[in-house]
Amino acid sequence: EVCQGFLNVTETLFVGTLSSYEAALEPFVPDADMKVAGTQLKKLVDTLPEKAKESILKLMVHSFLP
Amino acid sequence: EVCQGFLNVTETLFVGTLSSYEAALEPFVPDADMKVAGTQLKKLVDTLPEKAKESILKLMVHSFLP
Repeated sequence: EVCQGFLNVTETLFVGTLSSYEAALEPFVPDADMKVAGTQLKKLVDTLPEKAKESILKLMVHSFLP
Repeated sequence: EVCQGFLNVTETLFVGTLSSYEAALEPFVPDADMKVAGTQLKKLVDTLPEKAKESILKLMVHSFLP
């Protein structure tokens, strides 16, 4: 399901490695520009403080769990 | 629906203003830490090249449209 895949992408973006993030993107069939953009975004997000990344994930998990 | 709201958040994060992004977050009832984290993320994303942001949005729209 697309929404679940989207959640995977967001999760790996914040707490996963670059390769797990790229793997999560694969179902969305990114073209070359999209892969480059995704990598740029990942590098930026990796600079966020640990606490900020945790807060964002908490927000997402809290929203998606029944 | 949560997935639609999540899409709104992502869209405003990349091409919206900070206030439209904060408004998109509201349905998720962010606490203070989450709001701070969201703002930090928004500021980072605002530094991405125009082309990167467009590519990411194209990827998302392409995935979510039937």
